[in-house]
Amino acid sequence: MIKPRTPPGVMELLPRDQIAFQRMLDAIRGGFERFGFLPVETPVMELSEVLLTKTGGETERQVYFVQSTGALEKQDEGRPELALRFDLTVPLARYVAEHEHELAFPFRRYQMQRVYRGERAQRGRFREFYQCDIDVIGKDALSPRFDAEIPAVIAAVFDALAIGDFTIQLNHRKLLRGFFEGQGIEGERQMLVLRELDKLDKRGQDAVRATLAGDGFGLSAEVVDKLMAFSRVHSNGHADALAKLDALGSGTLLFEEGRDELRAILDQLKALGVSENRYAINLSIARGLDYYTGVVYETTLNAYPQIGSICSGGRYDDLAGHYTKSKLPGVGISIGLTRLFYQLREAGLVATADSSVDVLVALMDDAMLADALALSQRLRAAGMNVETQLEPRKLAKQLQYANKAGIRFVAMRGEDEAARGTVAVKDLRRGEQFEANDAEIANALLKAKETGHA
Amino acid sequence: MIKPRTPPGVMELLPRDQIAFQRMLDAIRGGFERFGFLPVETPVMELSEVLLTKTGGETERQVYFVQSTGALEKQDEGRPELALRFDLTVPLARYVAEHEHELAFPFRRYQMQRVYRGERAQRGRFREFYQCDIDVIGKDALSPRFDAEIPAVIAAVFDALAIGDFTIQLNHRKLLRGFFEGQGIEGERQMLVLRELDKLDKRGQDAVRATLAGDGFGLSAEVVDKLMAFSRVHSNGHADALAKLDALGSGTLLFEEGRDELRAILDQLKALGVSENRYAINLSIARGLDYYTGVVYETTLNAYPQIGSICSGGRYDDLAGHYTKSKLPGVGISIGLTRLFYQLREAGLVATADSSVDVLVALMDDAMLADALALSQRLRAAGMNVETQLEPRKLAKQLQYANKAGIRFVAMRGEDEAARGTVAVKDLRRGEQFEANDAEIANALLKAKETGHA
Repeated sequence: MIKPRTPPGVMELLPRDQIAFQRMLDAIRGGFERFGFLPVETPVMELSEVLLTKTGGETERQVYFVQSTGALEKQDEGRPELALRFDLTVPLARYVAEHEHELAFPFRRYQMQRVYRGERAQRGRFREFYQCDIDVIGKDALSPRFDAEIPAVIAAVFDALAIGDFTIQLNHRKLLRGFFEGQGIEGERQMLVLRELDKLDKRGQDAVRATLAGDGFGLSAEVVDKLMAFSRVHSNGHADALAKLDALGSGTLLFEEGRDELRAILDQLKALGVSENRYAINLSIARGLDYYTGVVYETTLNAYPQIGSICSGGRYDDLAGHYTKSKLPGVGISIGLTRLFYQLREAGLVATADSSVDVLVALMDDAMLADALALSQRLRAAGMNVETQLEPRKLAKQLQYANKAGIRFVAMRGEDEAARGTVAVKDLRRGEQFEANDAEIANALLKAKETGHA
Repeated sequence: MIKPRTPPGVMELLPRDQIAFQRMLDAIRGGFERFGFLPVETPVMELSEVLLTKTGGETERQVYFVQSTGALEKQDEGRPELALRFDLTVPLARYVAEHEHELAFPFRRYQMQRVYRGERAQRGRFREFYQCDIDVIGKDALSPRFDAEIPAVIAAVFDALAIGDFTIQLNHRKLLRGFFEGQGIEGERQMLVLRELDKLDKRGQDAVRATLAGDGFGLSAEVVDKLMAFSRVHSNGHADALAKLDALGSGTLLFEEGRDELRAILDQLKALGVSENRYAINLSIARGLDYYTGVVYETTLNAYPQIGSICSGGRYDDLAGHYTKSKLPGVGISIGLTRLFYQLREAGLVATADSSVDVLVALMDDAMLADALALSQRLRAAGMNVETQLEPRKLAKQLQYANKAGIRFVAMRGEDEAARGTVAVKDLRRGEQFEANDAEIANALLKAKETGHA
């Protein structure tokens, strides 16, 4: 006998949690599709040569390689031919470059699949997790107008997920770099300073100030003050965001370009009718990756800042330089749904879902089986998800089962109801019972289903 | 520069094909949920020790093993710890055994995920493919009534998929084994005879007859005749199925048990209102696996028998004997959707889908951007999937793009329409144009969308 168990670092759910998870996936997909994004799925395995174009990075250390039995037996030396994707960005780059001549640009795609990373096993760290990504890819160029559409999608998605108030925080790499330029901080040092500023929350003002003014950086007290003040800028409401941007004073060409783009994004969000509570500028947002070149996004739950960003991304200049000579700039975001679901559950923010089954059709008497089957099919034809009790069992047990399984309605048709041409229904959520004619039962149930949602 | 390409043996689709594929997945999921099946997803990686309980089979030769960079560097000898699932049945067995005390039995689950097999690379053979499975698992026992629900689900699913008429073919292992018993064919020989009968289509009557009457089997001409006659039995319609079962004459206890169960399944399918054109008995159906112990199912497209079975399964006695002492009998089926999609496409049975985008909101004039954004959001709020043209472009080009992308409607609001308070809409499918007031445009589009489906 072998102990049945999953490998460490994966999330496997019981059905009712899986239903809750699936509803989140569906809501996200719905939001992505509302904004015209098209679905893409890529294979979980990519050729190692294609997947691992950069070598030696931390990412590669986390890659899972795949080998068939045959390849293992050959004891091939060197890197196995296949590897599991570690994100959806590299597969997107490969996909767009491979199908460049078959796609229409700007190409809006969404992709919601699992990715794999050999993370250190740890609570809340996953080796297999869902990413839900959208990106818009341009050919040669991509209008900054797409930068404003992305937060509108994020807002629609998280409104639909209904996990509480959230703020999409915006910053701009050109604004940041322009500001650094203005302070005489150039090139590589910009990244190093950014990295220090990123630690403000953890290390506190004084420690970061000391580092920046210390020998390593050698910045003047005045510059350090300006940096600290800059990274503390965040807005509250639309007008405040514009005012805070104005109040930054004038700067380098790059700085002004970044500020103009941020202003345009704010204008466009307003035109899109996105509630001004949903977005803010936050000039401390940097996003670790060198990859981003324009706007950057982070999204936080207002009541749970400790969860960190639940949806991040930004604008990049060159998606697929390893695969094609075409310049493919893009903008996108990613939701790490497995981690988010885990954290929401820990915070008590996802309740166990009701069953996906709407109605249990009870078996009142074994002689009524054909009747119960026919009733089930009528309800299914009306669009309800129906489980039929197929084996004789005490009614109390059937009700108990429905209750435990999160099935809201139990339809009961015994000899009495059959004689009357009716069906009795128990609404377990409301603790009520009603009866309807055979001809009306499907509509009565659909109507009851619409009311009294938990 | 690295050539962007996928590994051999995977199916990757362009967006419009992906939409068609996604619609099939959604239809299948909808059908599964209609009948009360609950979703399960399992990790793509299982512990090798757990996954590969039987050793040396053909399946194990096709298994993909997974190793992190760290494990590769250690040059571990022996079998890697992780492997990719090769079907959804072993993960189901592991899942049910692992969560036995948290699940309610009979447990109806569906699972739609990709599985991995190191198949020989060949056109139409896939190393990564979707399986869409349903199973009902009982604890200790499972009423044969569940055997009849499965074909009702298959019928609902393939009706929804609308890929042409199909027949769910039923046989029963007890009937088969009972019949063999009656002819004095026992034990292992039953499987060998079955295997020969399975070759009837390929080898023809005479060749199979010669084999069965030859030295290896040594069956009398009379028995061979009976076997051939038996395996030719298939029905046409409900009454004919019952009549054909009656006409088999009397048999052993096992034979009668199988026949009674088949009759009960037929009765129940009738009670469920499944059209009698959708099912038939076919006593030549064996299903290769020793695994099945009761009813077996195969489903074929009437117009494309050469595609073979598109949905198969049956009843088994013991799902998870490797993981638990509990007896877990079950019944289920599997749809190999990747292969099915591939074959339907080859046969010209899946057209490239319309876009998932319902409406392109055109940009008539760059000064109208805010107006176009607001209109887009109104249509989205009404439930439509909308792409906004964000960059200035000639209207003819915008229409051309919508047409090529399979977007049916283009909403146009230039200065004239804005002055009139209307929106003009081109219906590219019908080649018509209409105009509606701002207040009515969303409803007008929803109504137009309902009509004239291709």
